[in-house]
Amino acid sequence: MTPQAPARAYRRLSVEERRSQLLDAALGLFARRAPEEVSLDDVAEAAGVSRPLVYRYFPGGKQQLYEAALRSAAEELERCFHEPAEGPLTQRLARALDRYLAFVDEHDTGFSALLQGGSVVETSRTTAIVDRVRRAAAERVLSHLGVAEPGPRLRMTVRTWISSVEAASLIWLDEGKEPSADELRDWLVEQFMACLVTTAGRDPQTARVVRGALAVERAEGAVGGLVRRVVPLIEDAGHLW
Amino acid sequence: MTPQAPARAYRRLSVEERRSQLLDAALGLFARRAPEEVSLDDVAEAAGVSRPLVYRYFPGGKQQLYEAALRSAAEELERCFHEPAEGPLTQRLARALDRYLAFVDEHDTGFSALLQGGSVVETSRTTAIVDRVRRAAAERVLSHLGVAEPGPRLRMTVRTWISSVEAASLIWLDEGKEPSADELRDWLVEQFMACLVTTAGRDPQTARVVRGALAVERAEGAVGGLVRRVVPLIEDAGHLW
Repeated sequence: MTPQAPARAYRRLSVEERRSQLLDAALGLFARRAPEEVSLDDVAEAAGVSRPLVYRYFPGGKQQLYEAALRSAAEELERCFHEPAEGPLTQRLARALDRYLAFVDEHDTGFSALLQGGSVVETSRTTAIVDRVRRAAAERVLSHLGVAEPGPRLRMTVRTWISSVEAASLIWLDEGKEPSADELRDWLVEQFMACLVTTAGRDPQTARVVRGALAVERAEGAVGGLVRRVVPLIEDAGHLW
Repeated sequence: MTPQAPARAYRRLSVEERRSQLLDAALGLFARRAPEEVSLDDVAEAAGVSRPLVYRYFPGGKQQLYEAALRSAAEELERCFHEPAEGPLTQRLARALDRYLAFVDEHDTGFSALLQGGSVVETSRTTAIVDRVRRAAAERVLSHLGVAEPGPRLRMTVRTWISSVEAASLIWLDEGKEPSADELRDWLVEQFMACLVTTAGRDPQTARVVRGALAVERAEGAVGGLVRRVVPLIEDAGHLW
């Protein structure tokens, strides 16, 4: 059953390398097809190994492999939001979103299948993994805001924005990746700043965060452009002042 | 097995009434517990009928009953966004959100279980039902904006806001229904207006919608308050102008 070359390759790879190779192959397949359309034979073929070898590493079969691939994807997604705490907030968010959208672009079908559920191997554990990514992303954003103990309004703002990013990504895939990833990134950054400023209108903690963030933004940056485009619209509605 | 009273009740109810009674009982149970913790016996007991009677109406068993209950909940959720096209946009959205949040409040556990997935009876069909509610809600909001043919940026704005409403509802349940539903409603309305105005900065169609919407808002209304609270924050960041 096992062809010569993969058997040789098997002897050369360490346990960790082999595991990682199988996860990569699985992730590649889950990225292009819904989980229920991927078999262990497909994974074995994609990795150039035998089916029994896949079972040796993942005795729980497809469910275990799917969850491990999912955790590996989750770790990659979590890393998207790792960003040095330097420079204007909007630039940090833009760089994080560049990585996030590149991941969405690369894993499009798998990303949709994962987030939209409806897979036969969907379980509360996979939901928990996805939820952990959301929470980790929210924590990262909050840390970029420089807040050690975020109150409920600030947390709500950040967490709902994370879900907007997710929803926008799914819509983006749904619409054939239109507009460009760069435009989507800029729009998401602007939406975040708008939501943050709106919450600041009612929440003193968020207002402090906004003042601090705006102080280091640049006139030629994302917020400067947004202010110059949006303020005239509001000024026209003079009866509201 | 069947007690006397329910059997009498059975003769009195029409097929439609009986079906509706069973759905109400099922919805009540699914609202308080995760679907996998509800049995057909529970539904029969809650409706005061025999298990075979439940099977007569729902021969597909629990899966069919769950989907029917879900569709019934979906129709109720869709109706939340039915609202006469009169008065300021923010007032219409506030009334729709009042109904939506009342539904979330009433069906809390079932609402979470449904949207967070991870149920054993979760299938692509239930996902499709939930997705239909999202799309219907977005259509309703777009119709309140008075746009017959919304472009991609306006649609993206409305659809991501719908997902924010959903995410905020789940967070609200997660945090023991804090802050109050009224405060959450006002915050969601303000977030929508902020997101809309932000998109308007780059999209001429959305800018027209915003001008039209702001023209009928009142100084003492939601947008007036938001403008008065938020503009000072932006004015303080004079280096961005």
